[in-house]
Amino acid sequence: MPEPKTKMLDEIKQQPESLDRLLRSGQGRAAEIASALAPDSYHYILIAARGTSDNAARYAQYLWGARNRRQVALAAPSLFSTYHQPPNLDGALVIGISQSGQSPDLVAVMQEAKAQGRPTVTITNEPNSPMAVTSDWVLPIDAGTENAVAATKTYTGQLLAIALLSAAWSKSAEDSAALRSVADLAAQALNAEAASRRASEAMAEVVACAVLGRGYNRATTFEWALKLQETTYTLAQPYSTADFRHGPIAVIESGFPVLAVAPAGTVYDEIAELAAQLRTERGATTFGITNVTDTSGAFDHLLPIPNSPEWLSPIPAIIAGQLFSYYTAHAKGHDPDEPRGLSKVTRTV
Amino acid sequence: MPEPKTKMLDEIKQQPESLDRLLRSGQGRAAEIASALAPDSYHYILIAARGTSDNAARYAQYLWGARNRRQVALAAPSLFSTYHQPPNLDGALVIGISQSGQSPDLVAVMQEAKAQGRPTVTITNEPNSPMAVTSDWVLPIDAGTENAVAATKTYTGQLLAIALLSAAWSKSAEDSAALRSVADLAAQALNAEAASRRASEAMAEVVACAVLGRGYNRATTFEWALKLQETTYTLAQPYSTADFRHGPIAVIESGFPVLAVAPAGTVYDEIAELAAQLRTERGATTFGITNVTDTSGAFDHLLPIPNSPEWLSPIPAIIAGQLFSYYTAHAKGHDPDEPRGLSKVTRTV
Repeated sequence: MPEPKTKMLDEIKQQPESLDRLLRSGQGRAAEIASALAPDSYHYILIAARGTSDNAARYAQYLWGARNRRQVALAAPSLFSTYHQPPNLDGALVIGISQSGQSPDLVAVMQEAKAQGRPTVTITNEPNSPMAVTSDWVLPIDAGTENAVAATKTYTGQLLAIALLSAAWSKSAEDSAALRSVADLAAQALNAEAASRRASEAMAEVVACAVLGRGYNRATTFEWALKLQETTYTLAQPYSTADFRHGPIAVIESGFPVLAVAPAGTVYDEIAELAAQLRTERGATTFGITNVTDTSGAFDHLLPIPNSPEWLSPIPAIIAGQLFSYYTAHAKGHDPDEPRGLSKVTRTV
Repeated sequence: MPEPKTKMLDEIKQQPESLDRLLRSGQGRAAEIASALAPDSYHYILIAARGTSDNAARYAQYLWGARNRRQVALAAPSLFSTYHQPPNLDGALVIGISQSGQSPDLVAVMQEAKAQGRPTVTITNEPNSPMAVTSDWVLPIDAGTENAVAATKTYTGQLLAIALLSAAWSKSAEDSAALRSVADLAAQALNAEAASRRASEAMAEVVACAVLGRGYNRATTFEWALKLQETTYTLAQPYSTADFRHGPIAVIESGFPVLAVAPAGTVYDEIAELAAQLRTERGATTFGITNVTDTSGAFDHLLPIPNSPEWLSPIPAIIAGQLFSYYTAHAKGHDPDEPRGLSKVTRTV
């Protein structure tokens, strides 16, 4: 089969380059924002985002929580737009995340934050968008135009922007050094293409699957599930391993695909153990995005990623997930560039 | 077919009584907690919860946001337990919600809040549990012993406890009057039993479905989906109508079941319009929990609930959803009292 040529695959492969560009353009800007925001000027961070960007927000919740001790809340935009009953934002630093910077409900959150006199930052690919111009500071993700409907390079750009702010807050030389490897990590993750393509063949007849992960990669479970939904029409549902044991575990039957995000780190053992249990006791077919070489029979299919600190693993992990979603679309006979019923900019209110 | 007799159905039907008991025992306690917590002693509310209780927390996010102007954040318990890197909680009022009050990760959040000198409240059915004894204040939900694995009366008890705190904060006579109707609303919602049973027959062969809603009833979409997962092994996925248009809409094919929570109110038109569009343009089979009598062809199957203010509708709405889940389990030949792989108290860390 010849290599399929699509906008989505092109943009997946642009990620080493787009991340390298953001690393160079964004580090100074992130430092500027971090030093302008006095730590005692806010108690918590409220993020306004939707769709893919809301998945990036979940990375911020764990990364800024664990490494910068910031408590992150995710906004309910409909309180600001549909219900017109915005909460009191005293104590909040309000951060908008959006590829286009245009969604009216998110613009409403940023405007309300401004009206209440709160500090505001927007992370976006469009530095002249309504959300950006409403904000005190803008951190552009510099991903270049994204043409595919399914976001890929703008998502990893948002993750890197979040990590740049984290490193700027921590002023850790170790964090900055790790970040300098990001383009290389992305390039190595692209090496999973052949493995992703092979594993995706097992998805050709699948209508539903579960995506498991926890901690920093909770974001990856949401984003991987969303990519599968958008491009392959699979009902892919993200779960934290903890929530999964609180009920959804009941849905697993023989042959049911369980996709796990399981890089080495704090939560690896828990995820691999659950995957192994679902595989042996319930006959689930398991797929693992991991850099662990001996997974002791937890996974039927491996999607390899390079070694990195656990907190940085969501970037290579989602690249493996993007490739897997792309090839699953092909295995199911769909064109991932033309998802039915979707358009690039979604204007929800 | 004779009336099936099960713990779950018994407990569903106990709700008018358990809610009436909480109304009487909880109003004074809620007023006491509200007056003890000076409004300037915290800037935002952080809720720690898992599973069903986390769904109740989503109700708090909208209710306290829209009607009390409180910004609500949902905790990431693994930051406190698994990662041992808890965020700084300055400015937070920390509220734990748990049926059993025992889950170690939630106990860890309450203990950390205490250690950081933050005010704490626990909403629980077990007022002597570890979470309760760690907290400054306890609001018991007084639901009596819950024997079924799938939570029903403890969930509506948590919703009512949240609403009692809201009314205590607003000191609104109108809110208190509306709350006095809650047992009656629950009793009327039980009248949906026959309709739920009929509609559930269309679910007998279903493996996956979407559950749509927004605003106050975002909580209902999560809890309805969880009940279906626990008792019927259907892969039921909750979506906000806004997020749905950002990607997942692509999964809908002809005959795909779309379950909507659509009581009269601010978001009714948007939900009914999306349901009608999915039904006519994509051939989805639509089910609507609603008190609107003329739904203009949005729904193939109606699950009727009584009229109430929109903010109180999540209580009757989930009762209709519980009945529907219960009868769907029967239609699929499962025993809802014995979900495979689940136990009543889930001890996640």
